[in-house]
Amino acid sequence: MSDYVYNLLKKHHSVRSFKKDPVSEESVKQLIEAGQSASTSSYLQAYSIIGIDDPEVKEDLKEVSGQPYVVENGYLLVFVMDYYRHAIVNENSKNDMSTSFESAEGLLVGTIDAALVAQNIATTAEDMGYGMVYLGSLRNDVERVREILELPEHTFPLFGMALGIPADNENGSPKPRLPIEHVFHQNKYNSDKEVQRRALSAYDQTVSKYYASRTNGERSETWSEQISNFMSAKQRLDMLEQLNKSGFIQK
Amino acid sequence: MSDYVYNLLKKHHSVRSFKKDPVSEESVKQLIEAGQSASTSSYLQAYSIIGIDDPEVKEDLKEVSGQPYVVENGYLLVFVMDYYRHAIVNENSKNDMSTSFESAEGLLVGTIDAALVAQNIATTAEDMGYGMVYLGSLRNDVERVREILELPEHTFPLFGMALGIPADNENGSPKPRLPIEHVFHQNKYNSDKEVQRRALSAYDQTVSKYYASRTNGERSETWSEQISNFMSAKQRLDMLEQLNKSGFIQK
Repeated sequence: MSDYVYNLLKKHHSVRSFKKDPVSEESVKQLIEAGQSASTSSYLQAYSIIGIDDPEVKEDLKEVSGQPYVVENGYLLVFVMDYYRHAIVNENSKNDMSTSFESAEGLLVGTIDAALVAQNIATTAEDMGYGMVYLGSLRNDVERVREILELPEHTFPLFGMALGIPADNENGSPKPRLPIEHVFHQNKYNSDKEVQRRALSAYDQTVSKYYASRTNGERSETWSEQISNFMSAKQRLDMLEQLNKSGFIQK
Repeated sequence: MSDYVYNLLKKHHSVRSFKKDPVSEESVKQLIEAGQSASTSSYLQAYSIIGIDDPEVKEDLKEVSGQPYVVENGYLLVFVMDYYRHAIVNENSKNDMSTSFESAEGLLVGTIDAALVAQNIATTAEDMGYGMVYLGSLRNDVERVREILELPEHTFPLFGMALGIPADNENGSPKPRLPIEHVFHQNKYNSDKEVQRRALSAYDQTVSKYYASRTNGERSETWSEQISNFMSAKQRLDMLEQLNKSGFIQK
């Protein structure tokens, strides 16, 4: 009974500072193959991956994201929900498949498919010695990302991933997660608010102490404070419009 | 440069036939911890996991899914998009966070968060010697799943996972994936339909041969035929309604 992967995953932390060394072509190929090996809903494989090493494309995407590590990395990936190839099959079919990818079900399937692929790639990359960070910030301007990557209809850019050898001064560490009893329920959901509040309160102290120790006391906000500030900022309220425009959630 | 995870993932195939042996409590705990270690969008951790060993709960979920392995497994997990705890934080906050989880952006964040956690669990389980299969079929009747698991508002059951020691007669093998040049694009998306059609045509033959060899020639459909039939069946067209009812995609 191996605990190799368990130990690898427990060490995970996002890396945002990379050496300039490019990820080799051979490694990229292995990463994509590992990604493709993930389970896929009903064999649909409703995703594509754009691999980016062109500095101009990286610069353009950095303008969308605002994060320097969109340019400064060993390799950049963008994960796309993709029913373009299914639409091509549909062109020559007497069956009407459009409902399948224009429905909210199609959105869930494509999003989950792409995320499973991405997480396989993340785990494989970390095992190879690379660091990685996800880039939800590409959703700041979906229309611009579609232009930059020339994405056709029936596709949608979900998120990116920057990869590379961690910089020498990179000193990230795993961030404390919610207590296990908070996210893990046995046989049915425990929605008792008092139980949840108690667990959150203990966790808030853990997170506050974590930040304080990492910043010599400069930051000390709790998890509740952090998510309250973040979630009230009303970000990316155009997402439904962007999904609609790209052909998703039509019915 | 380790290729341990690469080799593990390349061997992945879904297992649908398990021994009766339960997954030990210690293993379940390790799996949940490995899941929680996944990256999470803006630290939101917008998911919960329901672990199920109660035979009655399994029976109820099997009625929704229609798959025998929802009952016959070593352990069952259900992955839930979860903003219930964020809503609790919101109750005592002067900030209004509701837009964040009622928007399409909130749906993407929660779905991706849950899928990353699930794929960490899948990989860790396979490394431990277990087999697994995802259960999108729980979305056949979201309302019933909500009842069975007593899910509160601001949560949504996305998919399940059956786990266990593969049965002695289990003989699955990795199913051929789309050719790498079909899902992997360099620097921008290649939407040339002729290129895509050629790749699909070659892949169709690969899939047809795979099925024929696995079934002594009884099955031999191509990928295009399979997805065309599946995707025209108009399944789960209530998903947007179900998401709306659970508080998602309100704006």
